[in-house]
Amino acid sequence: MRTHIRRTDPFRWDGVEVAAYQPDGTHFRDVTRQVLFAGDGLDCELRYFEIAPGGWSSLERHEHVHAVMVIRGEGRALVGDRILDLATYDLVRVPPRTWHQFRATGSGPLGFLCLVPCGRDRPERPDAAALAALRADPRIAEFIRA
Amino acid sequence: MRTHIRRTDPFRWDGVEVAAYQPDGTHFRDVTRQVLFAGDGLDCELRYFEIAPGGWSSLERHEHVHAVMVIRGEGRALVGDRILDLATYDLVRVPPRTWHQFRATGSGPLGFLCLVPCGRDRPERPDAAALAALRADPRIAEFIRA
Repeated sequence: MRTHIRRTDPFRWDGVEVAAYQPDGTHFRDVTRQVLFAGDGLDCELRYFEIAPGGWSSLERHEHVHAVMVIRGEGRALVGDRILDLATYDLVRVPPRTWHQFRATGSGPLGFLCLVPCGRDRPERPDAAALAALRADPRIAEFIRA
Repeated sequence: MRTHIRRTDPFRWDGVEVAAYQPDGTHFRDVTRQVLFAGDGLDCELRYFEIAPGGWSSLERHEHVHAVMVIRGEGRALVGDRILDLATYDLVRVPPRTWHQFRATGSGPLGFLCLVPCGRDRPERPDAAALAALRADPRIAEFIRA
């Protein structure tokens, strides 16, 4: 456990790998993941995600919650049936079993911290029926990328 | 549980109280505390602390760990026997039972996120013997405020 981890480039940290967001890549675009704190006496992980301009995170839901703070740029998010306009430092809570997706809709990257429990369930992605149900709302149909 | 909490002024959030850092005020100076996420399905709390220029947090130790990210300004921290120079976005891990103190040594405030477990022990402050032991190291003697 290192005591001091310096940021190197903006939003990059010494010795912290800039990793693929998820193992397979058809359901998101231009997203990286950096694990900043994992365990070490806390029952949660703090990750930093960055979505390049025009990119989006996976549309998914799961039992565990997300606690999010935007720390770079702006974007939009679907959380349940709400579409949120996000500014730097805004906070977002994603409740259990709630469809969500983040998009970098501005001219720069959208970067956010995301806090999750260490022991968490795997995300579920929408099947055709779930997608159809989401798209029944034209605002959501316009927003989502899947 | 609110889904979207907008930042209002820089480093202030809609409906989030800017509270006193600790109940009594002789062992710190010019520190505020805002609780950003508390529980809500996570076994940890995310708080934002801000130390005005020239101020300092309590010199203390406890069993629980801290996971810290600076998000505003610069400062310095004592963690164990190390004195760290902190830039914006640097990460700090405070291990169990480790004396620590943060100071805003720059021209602006030092603001940082601090992640802790929900169930945590009370901080211990140094008694005269512990202070003397800390001050045996001249770098630490020069740094600490107590």
